[in-house]
Amino acid sequence: MNKITSYLEDAKQLVNAHLLTLIDKLQAPKILMEAMRYSLSAGGKRIRPILLLATLEAFEENREKGLDVACAIEMLHTYSLIHDDLPAMDNDDLRRGKPTNHKVFGEANAILAGDALLTYSFEIISSIPEREEVTPDMKLELIRRLAQAAGPEGMVGGQVEDLRNENNPNLSLQELENIHYNKTGKLIIYSIIAGAILAKAGEEKINLLEKFAYHLGIAFQIQDDILDVIGDSEKTGKPTGSDSVKEKSTYPKLLTMEGAKEKLNEHFEQALFYLEKANIHDEILKGIALYVVKREN
Amino acid sequence: MNKITSYLEDAKQLVNAHLLTLIDKLQAPKILMEAMRYSLSAGGKRIRPILLLATLEAFEENREKGLDVACAIEMLHTYSLIHDDLPAMDNDDLRRGKPTNHKVFGEANAILAGDALLTYSFEIISSIPEREEVTPDMKLELIRRLAQAAGPEGMVGGQVEDLRNENNPNLSLQELENIHYNKTGKLIIYSIIAGAILAKAGEEKINLLEKFAYHLGIAFQIQDDILDVIGDSEKTGKPTGSDSVKEKSTYPKLLTMEGAKEKLNEHFEQALFYLEKANIHDEILKGIALYVVKREN
Repeated sequence: MNKITSYLEDAKQLVNAHLLTLIDKLQAPKILMEAMRYSLSAGGKRIRPILLLATLEAFEENREKGLDVACAIEMLHTYSLIHDDLPAMDNDDLRRGKPTNHKVFGEANAILAGDALLTYSFEIISSIPEREEVTPDMKLELIRRLAQAAGPEGMVGGQVEDLRNENNPNLSLQELENIHYNKTGKLIIYSIIAGAILAKAGEEKINLLEKFAYHLGIAFQIQDDILDVIGDSEKTGKPTGSDSVKEKSTYPKLLTMEGAKEKLNEHFEQALFYLEKANIHDEILKGIALYVVKREN
Repeated sequence: MNKITSYLEDAKQLVNAHLLTLIDKLQAPKILMEAMRYSLSAGGKRIRPILLLATLEAFEENREKGLDVACAIEMLHTYSLIHDDLPAMDNDDLRRGKPTNHKVFGEANAILAGDALLTYSFEIISSIPEREEVTPDMKLELIRRLAQAAGPEGMVGGQVEDLRNENNPNLSLQELENIHYNKTGKLIIYSIIAGAILAKAGEEKINLLEKFAYHLGIAFQIQDDILDVIGDSEKTGKPTGSDSVKEKSTYPKLLTMEGAKEKLNEHFEQALFYLEKANIHDEILKGIALYVVKREN
């Protein structure tokens, strides 16, 4: 394994263990805890929490400091997947090669497991112990920005627009990017900014990292679209070409496959440009960015 | 109108106006904002936000100070109604005499409107302006307690248990009370405690008010069950006897109608006992408690 692969693996273990600790703490109905645990353990890449931890390290801070917020982000992301998969939304039976939450626990419990994960993510941030050098103002900033990234002006709004345009193959590139920006970009950006906030970074560095994250988020999405066309369905865990079946607008469709790859590269270069300008210990963040555009699932 | 009726009406107007201001502020997809607005404007009694405002006044504090938190609670309560009404849950077509959210906007938008209201409620509390003499520590406490009241250990957990026992007419009184405590009691308790926190009440008064709110919450639920049997369906907005059709356990079923009324009175008396012990300017809170047990819808 190269350095980045082993970093990712190690950070993932750290996140996975803490996620389970946080769930085990709850005194809640057994079926609800099982449903929450099921989707949290369904084998995600943990890109968002890992970006937070890596950002902390880029500021030479201890990554344990960010573990609670990192897990809150992953819980919130997981809730969005559970709700997106519901029959009324994307109606997906499989996620990462496993039956989706509502297939296993029924629709009502899936909706409620999502609601619970969303709500708990805010509790986790508000409950970060004092000793961790995270001030009340920092926690409030983290909560406020998370709600903005995830709520009606962010992820939820993006999902509404995405569903509204499901059968619209004529989206412009601008419209497509705006949907992705809201639906997935803002939470990716938040993950990195949350790390910077925890590291007490100044406004200038936060602004540069926001631009880094913005381009990284688009690159991530383009690679997703590319993998949907050419990817190995065993690796991606979903049938190849599933976007195409749904008439969804994608980067390869709008720009051709060649054009999509070019666009991916442009955003990757832009991301690195801003990351370098931030002038932090960015080796791992760079490695993760490279991993994002080269990944096969 | 007597004093309490006019207080309730006036406070309701205040809450309603602020709710719409908070929604109008959002830059979100039109259909999403409409769906959020629709259920927020569907004519609720606003008992929870009004309890918060009345608690503030019982401590001789300006109620404007609590308006943001009051509206956050009402948004969170409204999200829970939208999700509860979904086909996968209670499958209700009507709520307060109007078509439910998913009947008007479709299931996907209803789920997302609920998600948006839940997420936005945390943003609202985290964004309370500094000038309002609400310290960062107070805001965090308000967020933490709200998430606890509403999440897996509170309202969501209660709804899971409620659904699981939907066709179980043999619940014990203890089990029934536990479900109500989680599903509705904790948010009612939160509403009052949030007012006390904003008024910088000491621990002793908060504990007494928590007991007041606990008994008030049960009284509220018993009256709901009684109204379901004897209520005028034009006033309650739902068909009389709808719990009975669903084989749901209710207070009248477990205790007979006579017994349920007795129980209601017991909890009402207990509520007043603790309220008086708190030794605050409790005239309005008392009036609201009386209104809760005497109401006809």
